[in-house]
Amino acid sequence: MESFVRTNSPTTAPKNRQMAMMETARAAASFDSYELACFIHRGEDEVKKRRAAWHRVESITNVLDTSKLPRSYGNMDREQAYDEGLEWGKAAFEDGINYKHNYFDNITPRYVLSNASPFGLTTVMFLPTLRYQGTPEQKAYWIPLAESGQINGAYCQTELGHGTFVRGIETTATLDFDTDEFVIHSPTLSSTKFWPGAIGFSCTHAVVVARLIIRDKDYGTHLFMVQFRSLEDGTPMPGIELGDCGLKMSYNGTCNGYATFNQVRIPRTDMLMGNSAVSKDGKYSKTGHEKIGYATLVYVRTVIVLAVGYQLAQAVTIATRYSIVREQGLGPNGLASAETSLMTYKSQHYRILTLIAKAYAILLASWTCDAEYKELLRMQAMGDHSALPFNHHLSSGFKAWATQTGADGAEDARKCCGGQGYLLTSGLPEIVAAATATASFEGENYVLWQQVGRYLFKCIDALKAGKPIDSQMAYLTSEFVRIMSPPCQARGDQFLDVPVQLAIYRHRALRLVFSTYKELKTSNLPPIDAWNQHMMNIIAAARAHTEFLVLQAFVSHTEPLPAGPVKTVLVRLRSLFALSAITNPYSVNAITFIEDGHLSLLQLNTIRELINDLLAQLKDEAVGLTDAWDFTDASLCSALGMKDGNVYETLMNWTRQIPINVHASQTKGVYEKGWREWMDPVLKAKL
Amino acid sequence: MESFVRTNSPTTAPKNRQMAMMETARAAASFDSYELACFIHRGEDEVKKRRAAWHRVESITNVLDTSKLPRSYGNMDREQAYDEGLEWGKAAFEDGINYKHNYFDNITPRYVLSNASPFGLTTVMFLPTLRYQGTPEQKAYWIPLAESGQINGAYCQTELGHGTFVRGIETTATLDFDTDEFVIHSPTLSSTKFWPGAIGFSCTHAVVVARLIIRDKDYGTHLFMVQFRSLEDGTPMPGIELGDCGLKMSYNGTCNGYATFNQVRIPRTDMLMGNSAVSKDGKYSKTGHEKIGYATLVYVRTVIVLAVGYQLAQAVTIATRYSIVREQGLGPNGLASAETSLMTYKSQHYRILTLIAKAYAILLASWTCDAEYKELLRMQAMGDHSALPFNHHLSSGFKAWATQTGADGAEDARKCCGGQGYLLTSGLPEIVAAATATASFEGENYVLWQQVGRYLFKCIDALKAGKPIDSQMAYLTSEFVRIMSPPCQARGDQFLDVPVQLAIYRHRALRLVFSTYKELKTSNLPPIDAWNQHMMNIIAAARAHTEFLVLQAFVSHTEPLPAGPVKTVLVRLRSLFALSAITNPYSVNAITFIEDGHLSLLQLNTIRELINDLLAQLKDEAVGLTDAWDFTDASLCSALGMKDGNVYETLMNWTRQIPINVHASQTKGVYEKGWREWMDPVLKAKL
Repeated sequence: MESFVRTNSPTTAPKNRQMAMMETARAAASFDSYELACFIHRGEDEVKKRRAAWHRVESITNVLDTSKLPRSYGNMDREQAYDEGLEWGKAAFEDGINYKHNYFDNITPRYVLSNASPFGLTTVMFLPTLRYQGTPEQKAYWIPLAESGQINGAYCQTELGHGTFVRGIETTATLDFDTDEFVIHSPTLSSTKFWPGAIGFSCTHAVVVARLIIRDKDYGTHLFMVQFRSLEDGTPMPGIELGDCGLKMSYNGTCNGYATFNQVRIPRTDMLMGNSAVSKDGKYSKTGHEKIGYATLVYVRTVIVLAVGYQLAQAVTIATRYSIVREQGLGPNGLASAETSLMTYKSQHYRILTLIAKAYAILLASWTCDAEYKELLRMQAMGDHSALPFNHHLSSGFKAWATQTGADGAEDARKCCGGQGYLLTSGLPEIVAAATATASFEGENYVLWQQVGRYLFKCIDALKAGKPIDSQMAYLTSEFVRIMSPPCQARGDQFLDVPVQLAIYRHRALRLVFSTYKELKTSNLPPIDAWNQHMMNIIAAARAHTEFLVLQAFVSHTEPLPAGPVKTVLVRLRSLFALSAITNPYSVNAITFIEDGHLSLLQLNTIRELINDLLAQLKDEAVGLTDAWDFTDASLCSALGMKDGNVYETLMNWTRQIPINVHASQTKGVYEKGWREWMDPVLKAKL
Repeated sequence: MESFVRTNSPTTAPKNRQMAMMETARAAASFDSYELACFIHRGEDEVKKRRAAWHRVESITNVLDTSKLPRSYGNMDREQAYDEGLEWGKAAFEDGINYKHNYFDNITPRYVLSNASPFGLTTVMFLPTLRYQGTPEQKAYWIPLAESGQINGAYCQTELGHGTFVRGIETTATLDFDTDEFVIHSPTLSSTKFWPGAIGFSCTHAVVVARLIIRDKDYGTHLFMVQFRSLEDGTPMPGIELGDCGLKMSYNGTCNGYATFNQVRIPRTDMLMGNSAVSKDGKYSKTGHEKIGYATLVYVRTVIVLAVGYQLAQAVTIATRYSIVREQGLGPNGLASAETSLMTYKSQHYRILTLIAKAYAILLASWTCDAEYKELLRMQAMGDHSALPFNHHLSSGFKAWATQTGADGAEDARKCCGGQGYLLTSGLPEIVAAATATASFEGENYVLWQQVGRYLFKCIDALKAGKPIDSQMAYLTSEFVRIMSPPCQARGDQFLDVPVQLAIYRHRALRLVFSTYKELKTSNLPPIDAWNQHMMNIIAAARAHTEFLVLQAFVSHTEPLPAGPVKTVLVRLRSLFALSAITNPYSVNAITFIEDGHLSLLQLNTIRELINDLLAQLKDEAVGLTDAWDFTDASLCSALGMKDGNVYETLMNWTRQIPINVHASQTKGVYEKGWREWMDPVLKAKL
């Protein structure tokens, strides 16, 4: 049953050389990749349901026949890219409703965040905002409409001149006592709403962030429900100018757009008043927890961590498959009788396996993030918001770490495919471009690292004042600081042990967090100038702390597994992840693992040797480790990443279907316009 | 005069807030950016001639009016992208001939390598190959035709299944004694020529790399001149199938293509026989230096170093200008009365200034590379090829280092612009995509690092055998090894001194080169398996050596300058470059500067403080340092990078001109197809 819904391109042709190489490589794994797929997707039932959902959507959108050139690699212009997004988005949105699942609430069938779909903002931002910020009446009215697709919702915050700093938002919502309405207005060019997803041509309604103005008094930013388009014919409502932001590196299936408001009127009661309210006579009151909105941020960032893990996994799945079937040179020993699989070369093997390990690390980090978020929800439902700061810091740090790791990793996986990885038909440029966006949106990473730093230093303030801190932060207590002092005493295989690996990461985090805290506290500068002066160290400390938590997550989700081949391979991946972060030339801030002498050159060389051993042990596992993510050929959309290894035939087959080639083949192989207008005049000019 | 040909968009409108901020920032520099432009472009005369050339080409291609949306940000499909490349390419090619300059031989008017143009392969690859590999008769015949544009030449080497490993090429050229011809043939799918620039629809002729076969004996790859298209009507010659590779991340102005040969016949005398010859009776002879072709590689890699320096400079010019006018938050002290320039924040300031320093480092490295190449040419003209190995290693290492530094840096500059940097209208996605290609082509970087390693270890072999080595490699002599032993004794401001900085880099290079050499020589494995086992260390050693040479280049081109504001700022940039490579969290392999205890934590913290000082000194120089590269607004093609700072108005102005918006504005603001086919059905479905 699984294999039926899974195989996109039933191969009737005889196996060619590349396909035979792939079959051999796949058979070499020490574990059952289906068992690992059930681990990744958290149960066999889920694996089956997911496969069925993908199969339905890929059937409806007509992409199962991978012998056809995928549309987006032909001559798609802006409009056509949006058309494709609408088609995929509709299929995915309706599948979720019809089959009662939420697979496409957060990621699209191509494993991009759902805000890549014109229908996706409803689930990713609009509904969560309503749930946190609406009154019971507002929720009862709007949520069913949005859930059933009778309205399409967006979230409209950033402006041409204002992003991360929400307090700088210029759009105004002024109470008109006479009509009991708010007047939404864009007072300046820089107040033009810019970037919100789906507002260009898709959404019917949006939650708009605007400054609440009552009798000339500015109450700061609040949320307002604004109808953007007629439900009848899609025309923008009076006073609203809407349009598209134009082509982006990716996410062109949706219409991130701009909006300007010219004195647009909405009922007073369409302010979201769950946590603050304005009465008919202009009385303002706080009615809920001030920072309740942060829970939406926590949710979105948690989702991003998972999504970027999938994206890195997609990229490295393609790179793994291509590296298996791509042959180059006569092998590292230079003596092979024919060319040798690219995977044979140490640098390729090192890059690909460490990238696979990172994809798993991001996945497992997202599990921890998600579990903490669910606990937050449980507590908030009982009126206890005390877990918000920890969750905000955790999701911020994991988001910043995962998006950078995922985006850089996807680009490195692309480079692992050499020139072919530069072709759109490789699928990789689109994956890399989608992944790199995550570093900028929903909290720019450099801002997030500082938020992590603020939370850390508040914890230390609390400790020093003898106050309790969140239990998850217990490692910051001074007892640990003493125990974990340099230098590390481990040697040989001890570096493969969980406690040793955790101790190295913990020591680094403690040292950087406490030394930076001291710098800030002993600075002669005003506190916030001191912050700017030491910002690079603050970021380094926040990252080191986050990387310790990430390693903890890897450990906590793999150590409890029953002994067996799946656990063995995951434990090796964990060691590869933990150790290669120290010595990988591209690791961020690796210098801070050793600058205080915590690890000696001898120990580093031991670590390098252990990494070589782990790579040797994992060499034949790469195909199984990537198969387990269970990507369909259609969702990878990659000539290089065909599961059956049929790379070259697919690439040439697709290339011949590219419109410029099809058109030229109809005119004797000439691209006539180009020849006539530019080539021929130069050739005949006799300059 | 300069300003006349320079200003693309004469501003008649009153200065807005952003333009005023830019004017203030520009005025703050301590030096004259025109004087620095003359340094960068090597003379005032060159600056003037370049400005005139750019102005002519930008006039012909009608891009001077930057109030118009650049075409490539509208609805360009594959054909239209190629059209634009043809138009720019023709204008640039003809300008070079008409005004007798070579500015566009290697880079396009948009600062991409000229193989981005359908006319560019002639100068970048075809002519250099002829010069090195043709006989005097062949040169006399073909070179004037190509130089005058009567033929358009390409270089056709890589195949679907074969890239870096040239010996794996499958295309055959079999001597037919009966007709005195070679028969060019593609025996397999994987032998399809794939990727060569301009072969899809542009070139008329190509130098084809194929295996020379005489009487069933395989003589390995040689070069053959093959006519690809009719000069009359552009139709492919009989037996040749040609087409486009499809859309790429960038370089879509040209037609990288594929070619298959079905028993295509060329005269025997069209084999390029400058260095090896085949007589009518099938006698094969070597007639020249075996590795003469390497000089073409040296040339192309030298050109790439320069080009990627320009690309990083473009990206950081845009990021600098945007960071000056973008306001966010209430400043690092949180107390500003209005939002504060993004450049005020330490992390932004750190990233931008270190990226500027890297752009200068790449530029100066390219000067050294170019000077060595010219010396090689001089020696080769006298029959002395002994400088080839040094030049091959130098250009390989500089290419690998510069392309990675440039591509990663351009992407970081893009991220410095937050969400706006993700828009095509920012200009940055195209620059980043063009820059990242350089890491893969003309020698994939991981292969190049190993070539550097091979040369280094041969030098040590020679030293150990008491033989001489190239004079530029004198630092490898054992005397230096002794002198530069750890630990470094410098403290305080001494880290700003040239000898101290060079000593740190030299020590690291020596340690890694010699320790890796020892690992290889003492390994129990067969030599080439040992190479694979230690590959990551070999790459680290090659990089450390190259970075030492890069710092030497920075020193050698700046120390001789007369004292004055320009020298002062360049010296500070050099220190920022040298020191930040040690402590920047994103530095590659920074761990190797310190892992042997050469630098202590105390010294590292001193270095961090000095970097903060340098950043403070350079804070007001960023605009001048980027202005000096002398990019026109049209060549940056960036709404964020407008020289006058008019960012927001330009961005909105361009956005409203995007075709999907123009079309929708003609239908009451609705994108009708999307609404009708996908949105409306979902809204009305009552799911």
